[in-house]
Amino acid sequence: MNEFELINRFFAPLAGKEAVGLLDDAAHIMPEADKKLVISKDMLVEGIHFLPDNNPGDIAWKALTVNISDLVAKGAKPRGYLLGLGLPHAPDEVWMTAFASGLKQAQDAYAIHLIGGDTVKSPAQLTISITVIGEADPAAPLRSGARAGDLIYISGSLGGAYSGFQSLTGKIAKNEAAEHFYLRPHAPIDLCPMIGMFASASADISDGLSADLDHILKASGRIGATINVATIPMFSGDSEEDVMNILSWGDDYQVVFTVDPLREHAMLDFHHTNCVTPLTKIGLCDDSNSLDFIYNDQEMIIVQGRGYTHF
Amino acid sequence: MNEFELINRFFAPLAGKEAVGLLDDAAHIMPEADKKLVISKDMLVEGIHFLPDNNPGDIAWKALTVNISDLVAKGAKPRGYLLGLGLPHAPDEVWMTAFASGLKQAQDAYAIHLIGGDTVKSPAQLTISITVIGEADPAAPLRSGARAGDLIYISGSLGGAYSGFQSLTGKIAKNEAAEHFYLRPHAPIDLCPMIGMFASASADISDGLSADLDHILKASGRIGATINVATIPMFSGDSEEDVMNILSWGDDYQVVFTVDPLREHAMLDFHHTNCVTPLTKIGLCDDSNSLDFIYNDQEMIIVQGRGYTHF
Repeated sequence: MNEFELINRFFAPLAGKEAVGLLDDAAHIMPEADKKLVISKDMLVEGIHFLPDNNPGDIAWKALTVNISDLVAKGAKPRGYLLGLGLPHAPDEVWMTAFASGLKQAQDAYAIHLIGGDTVKSPAQLTISITVIGEADPAAPLRSGARAGDLIYISGSLGGAYSGFQSLTGKIAKNEAAEHFYLRPHAPIDLCPMIGMFASASADISDGLSADLDHILKASGRIGATINVATIPMFSGDSEEDVMNILSWGDDYQVVFTVDPLREHAMLDFHHTNCVTPLTKIGLCDDSNSLDFIYNDQEMIIVQGRGYTHF
Repeated sequence: MNEFELINRFFAPLAGKEAVGLLDDAAHIMPEADKKLVISKDMLVEGIHFLPDNNPGDIAWKALTVNISDLVAKGAKPRGYLLGLGLPHAPDEVWMTAFASGLKQAQDAYAIHLIGGDTVKSPAQLTISITVIGEADPAAPLRSGARAGDLIYISGSLGGAYSGFQSLTGKIAKNEAAEHFYLRPHAPIDLCPMIGMFASASADISDGLSADLDHILKASGRIGATINVATIPMFSGDSEEDVMNILSWGDDYQVVFTVDPLREHAMLDFHHTNCVTPLTKIGLCDDSNSLDFIYNDQEMIIVQGRGYTHF
């Protein structure tokens, strides 16, 4: 199977109307007037981000999800994605069918289409590099807009992916619900318009809540924040050790964002009418210059790097 | 050196004004009114597209060039690029310095800046995935616009990269000029506006002239073409074997395009005033449904796949 057969058979069915790129040198997007384009790129490497024997459909789903969560955090509506696929050996029909099927399910969940990419040999390890393109209002949030006094919200719950990883690696009793959170995380795509309109700063939780919230605070001029850990919805978290791990674990792909308290009521009204993924207020930005997690009336020290690290 | 140190030290100096992405979840581009965005993505893998002992600056230069040539072929002005970097071990200061220096030289040559990306572990092999974003008029050429009667042009010359590879692998006497063509190919960025305005169809020569022109003909409705091989400027080409290899070798990153004969004169006028890279007319599209290369008054059969293949 050469690259063109691969495209025709497995990728063309995933292509949308902007997909001239699949058989051209490039993809083409005509942005809507007065919108900015938001572009993100995440790579996944065999042995680091997934294991060789993971289900190809799960790998594909996760590869798109980790990119979509960046768009959600910026309040950007998905417009298209490019897939870079480095294959360790000639394309295997069974593997490709399952991979394309997982991509299709993720595409449908996030209302996005394949618009281009590149397929190459990658002899030693499967490598997936996805670039997503979204469209947002020019005023949509960066990491840098948080102010002292802003409220801190997260989407969904944390810890499902952590428990899933524990289950998959045999460290806890098998828990299929948790494994699903790890293998098929769902980025809260329904929140895009709300985040675009109301968040003052926003980031996806890909390095763990403690790290990603810290990025927001530092980018916003070294303001501080206090988080009430008891308010954070957690899939599990029976021990203090579990809670600490969950707070530094990123694989849930939820979003943490801040909102001006004067806009909170309007945001919650909008959320009630238009969104499905639950929101939870977990803390408050302040001028303390430090990020404090309060657990059982004491400050909890989060040791970063227990979960996902880049190096 | 963690990811944030890597960004601050080596990548932040490469970032342009749209580079909020380096410290945000995503890059942001505000397109000019009534322009389309053109997006392309090419991956390079150690052992396939370059060797472990290649100069890191050359690897970086080439990684950007192979992406820029896609923008040139679409007549798109570069707006920014995202860098996905999979490193086999912890970042090495000497290697990173040379890599960033090569990227900077390529950036300057193509008037483009880094706007985002991702850095991950890639234990078994260095992997580079670049996504470039350019801006073009909505009518800028695809592969599919060629018509019988259109003239066929190429930019620059072919064969420098082929001779360079022969020199680097010891198959011919050392030829530093040729090696430079292979190690530091230069995409003809000055031709972007001309191609955007005048080409009816266009593709970069990344798989070899015979394959890439064939893509244009097939995308344009299975029209045919006849190429006069003697008119193609070649860096070398002493034997028929050399000429055949050069016509199926893609590493020069020049552009092949078609133009309506009624627009040829205006195009050449524009070229004379605004461009540096030479153009050469090499043939004519016809309704024969076959692509013929005429060499010494005989049809030359190009065996595809002698040069670069994806699998």
